[in-house]
Amino acid sequence: MVELFATEQLKKLAPRYRTFIEKELYPLEIALVNIPFREAGPILQQKRELAKKQKLWAPFLPKKEGGAGLTLTEFGQISELMGTTPFGHYVFNCNAPDIGNIELMHRHASASLKKKYLLPLVQGKIRSCFSMTEPGSAGSNPVALETTAIREGDQYVINGLKWFTTAADGASFAIVMAVTNASASPYERASMILVPTDTAGFNIIRNIPIMGEAGEGYMSHAEIEYNNCRVPVSNLIGEEGSGFVLAQERLGPGRIHHCMRWIGICERAFELMCERARTRNMGDGTMLGDKQTIQNWIAESRAEINAARYMVLHTAHRIDQEGAKAARPDISAIKFFVADVLMKVLDRSIQAHGALGITDDTLLSFWYRHERGARIYDGPDEVHKSSLARSILKNKKA
Amino acid sequence: MVELFATEQLKKLAPRYRTFIEKELYPLEIALVNIPFREAGPILQQKRELAKKQKLWAPFLPKKEGGAGLTLTEFGQISELMGTTPFGHYVFNCNAPDIGNIELMHRHASASLKKKYLLPLVQGKIRSCFSMTEPGSAGSNPVALETTAIREGDQYVINGLKWFTTAADGASFAIVMAVTNASASPYERASMILVPTDTAGFNIIRNIPIMGEAGEGYMSHAEIEYNNCRVPVSNLIGEEGSGFVLAQERLGPGRIHHCMRWIGICERAFELMCERARTRNMGDGTMLGDKQTIQNWIAESRAEINAARYMVLHTAHRIDQEGAKAARPDISAIKFFVADVLMKVLDRSIQAHGALGITDDTLLSFWYRHERGARIYDGPDEVHKSSLARSILKNKKA
Amino acid sequence: MVELFATEQLKKLAPRYRTFIEKELYPLEIALVNIPFREAGPILQQKRELAKKQKLWAPFLPKKEGGAGLTLTEFGQISELMGTTPFGHYVFNCNAPDIGNIELMHRHASASLKKKYLLPLVQGKIRSCFSMTEPGSAGSNPVALETTAIREGDQYVINGLKWFTTAADGASFAIVMAVTNASASPYERASMILVPTDTAGFNIIRNIPIMGEAGEGYMSHAEIEYNNCRVPVSNLIGEEGSGFVLAQERLGPGRIHHCMRWIGICERAFELMCERARTRNMGDGTMLGDKQTIQNWIAESRAEINAARYMVLHTAHRIDQEGAKAARPDISAIKFFVADVLMKVLDRSIQAHGALGITDDTLLSFWYRHERGARIYDGPDEVHKSSLARSILKNKKA
Amino acid sequence: MVELFATEQLKKLAPRYRTFIEKELYPLEIALVNIPFREAGPILQQKRELAKKQKLWAPFLPKKEGGAGLTLTEFGQISELMGTTPFGHYVFNCNAPDIGNIELMHRHASASLKKKYLLPLVQGKIRSCFSMTEPGSAGSNPVALETTAIREGDQYVINGLKWFTTAADGASFAIVMAVTNASASPYERASMILVPTDTAGFNIIRNIPIMGEAGEGYMSHAEIEYNNCRVPVSNLIGEEGSGFVLAQERLGPGRIHHCMRWIGICERAFELMCERARTRNMGDGTMLGDKQTIQNWIAESRAEINAARYMVLHTAHRIDQEGAKAARPDISAIKFFVADVLMKVLDRSIQAHGALGITDDTLLSFWYRHERGARIYDGPDEVHKSSLARSILKNKKA
Repeated sequence: MVELFATEQLKKLAPRYRTFIEKELYPLEIALVNIPFREAGPILQQKRELAKKQKLWAPFLPKKEGGAGLTLTEFGQISELMGTTPFGHYVFNCNAPDIGNIELMHRHASASLKKKYLLPLVQGKIRSCFSMTEPGSAGSNPVALETTAIREGDQYVINGLKWFTTAADGASFAIVMAVTNASASPYERASMILVPTDTAGFNIIRNIPIMGEAGEGYMSHAEIEYNNCRVPVSNLIGEEGSGFVLAQERLGPGRIHHCMRWIGICERAFELMCERARTRNMGDGTMLGDKQTIQNWIAESRAEINAARYMVLHTAHRIDQEGAKAARPDISAIKFFVADVLMKVLDRSIQAHGALGITDDTLLSFWYRHERGARIYDGPDEVHKSSLARSILKNKKA
Repeated sequence: MVELFATEQLKKLAPRYRTFIEKELYPLEIALVNIPFREAGPILQQKRELAKKQKLWAPFLPKKEGGAGLTLTEFGQISELMGTTPFGHYVFNCNAPDIGNIELMHRHASASLKKKYLLPLVQGKIRSCFSMTEPGSAGSNPVALETTAIREGDQYVINGLKWFTTAADGASFAIVMAVTNASASPYERASMILVPTDTAGFNIIRNIPIMGEAGEGYMSHAEIEYNNCRVPVSNLIGEEGSGFVLAQERLGPGRIHHCMRWIGICERAFELMCERARTRNMGDGTMLGDKQTIQNWIAESRAEINAARYMVLHTAHRIDQEGAKAARPDISAIKFFVADVLMKVLDRSIQAHGALGITDDTLLSFWYRHERGARIYDGPDEVHKSSLARSILKNKKA
Repeated sequence: MVELFATEQLKKLAPRYRTFIEKELYPLEIALVNIPFREAGPILQQKRELAKKQKLWAPFLPKKEGGAGLTLTEFGQISELMGTTPFGHYVFNCNAPDIGNIELMHRHASASLKKKYLLPLVQGKIRSCFSMTEPGSAGSNPVALETTAIREGDQYVINGLKWFTTAADGASFAIVMAVTNASASPYERASMILVPTDTAGFNIIRNIPIMGEAGEGYMSHAEIEYNNCRVPVSNLIGEEGSGFVLAQERLGPGRIHHCMRWIGICERAFELMCERARTRNMGDGTMLGDKQTIQNWIAESRAEINAARYMVLHTAHRIDQEGAKAARPDISAIKFFVADVLMKVLDRSIQAHGALGITDDTLLSFWYRHERGARIYDGPDEVHKSSLARSILKNKKA
Repeated sequence: MVELFATEQLKKLAPRYRTFIEKELYPLEIALVNIPFREAGPILQQKRELAKKQKLWAPFLPKKEGGAGLTLTEFGQISELMGTTPFGHYVFNCNAPDIGNIELMHRHASASLKKKYLLPLVQGKIRSCFSMTEPGSAGSNPVALETTAIREGDQYVINGLKWFTTAADGASFAIVMAVTNASASPYERASMILVPTDTAGFNIIRNIPIMGEAGEGYMSHAEIEYNNCRVPVSNLIGEEGSGFVLAQERLGPGRIHHCMRWIGICERAFELMCERARTRNMGDGTMLGDKQTIQNWIAESRAEINAARYMVLHTAHRIDQEGAKAARPDISAIKFFVADVLMKVLDRSIQAHGALGITDDTLLSFWYRHERGARIYDGPDEVHKSSLARSILKNKKA
């Protein structure tokens, strides 16, 4: 734990999460990632109940709503622990995209939407999804968004094609990003609208096969057609035209969650690499850990993971203190920096395991496949680099 | 085609392979890699028949045995073409491990083994596998080999555990590497023995789940228990104790095959990246190919693939001229150099495709998973680097 | 400034240093690094007087001794500012090796050594050097140390060959590391002994030509022969046999100083790169900063420098709180991590400047030559990586 | 020697060059690079006379003009040998920019220019320079060229500022690139004109200090003001307006020379690294070469140097066979690929030498400083990458 970020509350909570995760989840994880979600779900449900019982449920929520009222910096550190095992976030109801939808609705949804959708979501009775990315257009360009929500009377009629809508399969509702005012300025064209998944015209075309698996349920990414999909105007979240502002707002904390989850994965992969180094007998009187190449990997990984953690926690701290807008350059920087560290650490750990590293007998192959997207989703690293550089070049000009 | 390696025969043959592959295989490939082998097999069988009919079958074989009598350098260049599509080598009966077993048995098997096993293998009527790697020991250390073949009368009794025996599922026989003389000098301890897969005591424990897939048939890697598995002494290939010599001999041409296949994959991934760069509209008046980062990736990939191809073909040429032993340092060098280029080119092409790059809508995700092992099998790159360096340091000392 | 490390004192002091450095030193720096030290010295002396007058002298010293009583974490941040210009540390009497000798003697020298040598050193009236590295042996191996100090009566007779004794030319004394007890355990063999440079047998063989320059005075690295060099036993610093313990103790804060100085160089090179990007007209209607490659360099450099600074300051903080021993793994990690960032940022900034970047019209070529050693001195990065990895592998075994 | 490129003539010549270089030049090189050119020159002159006597002078020239009539591919391989020592090319009169000027004038200069300037240049009686790069404009943009040559009667009046005019100090003439027709299409605006350096208005402002050294004579890079510099129209080389065409023509073979020289440097640095690995005792019973990290460096360097050599020689072969235009993509590729290998190999060799590696006791520090420009001159690598990528994206579109 980083001494400067170790609050009293965190010092109490972290060991409880660690114990739960190591005792309840580690023993199941290899099995769970290698079966369909319909089989894993019920087992996970028991763990979710246990988490509730132990008051470990959704710690990011305010205390009066049953959470632990953690700051973003505190929650980030818990999120790292959850990240060390594939279903960690899910078991504590901290998983994307639900956590992002919860935070969004908490602030911007009407009372009736809150009652009908937010409450059961918080309680873990339903799941949700977030429908933003489109196959035909570069996500980094707001003007390129093609899905429309045309107002007719007191309804929005939504048409468009989305993909990579994570966990849509089995979700009760989607929050969809659609153009409500095509003639407005670029960042005021779109709105976020809640669409129950049983609405006519909400059609899941497929769970997209990714890295050899279409997946299902919570473990899937859907392609969705919105075909004259009608919802009441009151399903609007926030103001009409505020879609990009809300997306931006969602982004800061979301980035912290993701990055800390990645760091959790790094720590686990690192631990596996060290364990392998300690125990693999080379048959020539040395252990794998005696080889200098693997020593290099261990040392470099240790340094890089530490660096990544410091960067993310300082960014979280800044968001806590000054808000996400002030922290925007830091938020850009951690995206590509931590994703890069994640790739390097996973790759080294796999290589250290030899043939074992590509089998499903360890978690490494799961993460290798499921986390390659880290450099792509939420905007490819290249876009973040250009955007950060442009803001630097602009700021100092003055 | 590299002008200096473009023989007359190659100039005639290469376009015929290219046409076959582009016309018969490219249209099927995405579908075939995403279904089980039992469904893909029959479709591929038709293509294999067609390849035979067009006299494109097993061109590495001498002309009198129905091949094209290609030199290793020539075959390497055909192998690159086959490598551009996942089942390329299989359709032309040039796939590992069969091609290696064919070459091995051609030189070292008895007449009766040839008649019973080699002939149908060459004709594509049966498949085979090669059983060398063991889970418990570092493959780079000959003394660590644990599987034993104890002679009892005119039989070998084989006991041991092997894994990563590629394509064992459905194979008619395995060639197994086992210790026949534990007290001999390290490189004379083991022998290669042919074991029909219906022999009692030959037990496939599982097709090892790798990168999320256990696979089946030709597309699988088995864990195999040899449990008092008895075969006649006449199933020995080559001399008793010659296992490592034969493995070494197999390695040179095998390395060329692998590396040229990887270069084929690189060229295809490169082509996909360029196509994406040309056609992806960024929505801001530019195409993806106008971005400098992707231009860097294209230029670097082009240079690296060319460099890789030159290295492998010069190595093949040297093997053709001077034999595999003289070319040993080159054979070490291409292993890690080409594997590294493969990883880089695949990674860039995926990243250039954005979210599409991790879906199974392109071949990239297939190769990303199936070729990560390139840096591991046949000895991890780290072992090859040390071994090359030691030979350099030793040679010049004199 | 990193918010969590910005103490009240630092907030007051840092702007005063920044102003001094930008106003008094930046305008002179290009000229000063391109003339011999004998010409630069007098100009720098004026600035040193000014620094004293403004109470900016040696802020690492306790307040009662004329310093600012800064913690290591605070001083590190001032050290970064000084690092942005080549003679920054020298002007404020914070330069290696004097600062290390001051800290060492402060704790471990006898009262009479303090009076005779430490006091004028603190006042900037004399310079000193530290003589540890030997040409014939790997510095990472304590047993390899060859220089001896044999006790004869109340004198040590010192014999041996040292090199890379920085700033020996013109120094008044050296602190030399020599074997006083060859038969002791490895880390108890050596002692630190103060040797006035006018002692008979203290012979500077040469200022070693490094990167095309032998240098002179403060800007030099000497090869020194100790030839029956006799000093009183009272010149011993600390206990006999405590040499390695003292070296270790010196190392922690010294590493922080170095690393923060490197980060200062990074920030300056980064600033130069950004300035170039903003102002270099490409003649095609774009500025250099519009090119994506340079945007990548700017973004990656920003992220890496931030990461480096966080790592070093957290390490400094840990040393302040728990002592250097507890922070040892962190101290190893920052060495190679920050040196690597330094190389990358300098290299990118040079490349961004085109031909200008290799001329002496900017500071970049000075740092390119003078800081290549960062990956070598204080133990090459490779040694630190192995040592960090071994400590990790050992710790977790328990 | 690469077997496929080893012609009979080369097999005879190469050992003679190797012997000369190892016997005559290696023993002097460290001394020569560390003294001013005015002192090194006379010593080198003796070696030049010896080279002439041994018929090793300017082997790139046709036989009837005293050379060996080597193909570009053959000369490239000799150039590699010359590249292993700093003054190799100079001693055999194969040094840039003279070799480029010789080839250019050979083809395009008038008979009288040939007689007056080319002949003594070929004989090594005078030196020359090539004045193209300008400080104010990006060299990659032909429209940005600012130096003008205005025709007045039978004279050109040249005005402009050039820099990085290599070896201008002491040269007898410059070939200058100047705009003769500002209103022509971009690539037809400029011409090449021969300017004797004693012409009024040809003013060397300074030898630019680079990496700490202004240098002098052949070892310098000048900033030159052309101030109403008048030369007869008959000093034009080729046609008016053909400047860029001639520059392009010069580029192909020039690139081969540079790249093979770099490979020569690589081989020497590699040899030094191996020698260090073999002889550096680590004091713990192992040699440096037993460490896996240095084994990695040796193996990777070996592979990369081989790859680089294959690429360059195949490119040279293509130029020999099909002309420079056909080989343009290859010519772009080798620039950045080989420069990158050069940087990596030099860096590893320095690091392998520890502190010794940054001293001037080996050649490494000389090359480290003098060859950093390899990634910049003749157009920075970034420009070549973009240009190669654009040509690839364009070609396949069709």
